[in-house]
Amino acid sequence: MRDGNLFDLAYDFERIFRNSEEYTRLKRLFKEVNTDPTAMQLFNKYNHLQSELLNKQMMGQKVMKQEIDDFQKTLAHVQQNEKIVKLLEADQHVNILITKLNKIITKPLEEIYGTPEGR
Amino acid sequence: MRDGNLFDLAYDFERIFRNSEEYTRLKRLFKEVNTDPTAMQLFNKYNHLQSELLNKQMMGQKVMKQEIDDFQKTLAHVQQNEKIVKLLEADQHVNILITKLNKIITKPLEEIYGTPEGR
Repeated sequence: MRDGNLFDLAYDFERIFRNSEEYTRLKRLFKEVNTDPTAMQLFNKYNHLQSELLNKQMMGQKVMKQEIDDFQKTLAHVQQNEKIVKLLEADQHVNILITKLNKIITKPLEEIYGTPEGR
Repeated sequence: MRDGNLFDLAYDFERIFRNSEEYTRLKRLFKEVNTDPTAMQLFNKYNHLQSELLNKQMMGQKVMKQEIDDFQKTLAHVQQNEKIVKLLEADQHVNILITKLNKIITKPLEEIYGTPEGR
């Protein structure tokens, strides 16, 4: 079996994923948020605060109460913005889809090395 | 376009990957190491020390000189064990292949969110 097949399949996969309902919806909703200055600013702030918190947690750094308060306040605003809520839902759907597909594709490696958690 | 296509493609992908030269070679070499008690013990020790070091680095924890010395001594032994050297090479080949394929498949998401590093 030639690996060329794997690359052909990867390109097929990319094309079908790009045309999937999940992806086209995500792309449209992302554009809607990013062409609405208020939503865009709020969405960027939310992502920025969230990734700062996650990075600190991952690095085992202390998180200040003020940072958690800021994040929760921003999250409350986000939850009131319908465009962002829809985008986050679409993002979650795509993530679930990709996770399921990835689990299928990486099963042969899991059989060798065990699950990533179990390594 | 129905998502069923994506799952069909994922299963095709899994099957072709499982039969690829890279994967079958990796699986064979992994078995060779794991049926040789000396190689297996050394390989497990190497993986254990390496993941401990990487975890500490990721968590921003201090790494002791003794730990680095232990790892380097084990690495020197590993580099003298032909079975493990071949296995590590095969593992690297599979990783490079998967990285290339993954880059193709996730291009649509990269177009929305930018590269993971640039997020």
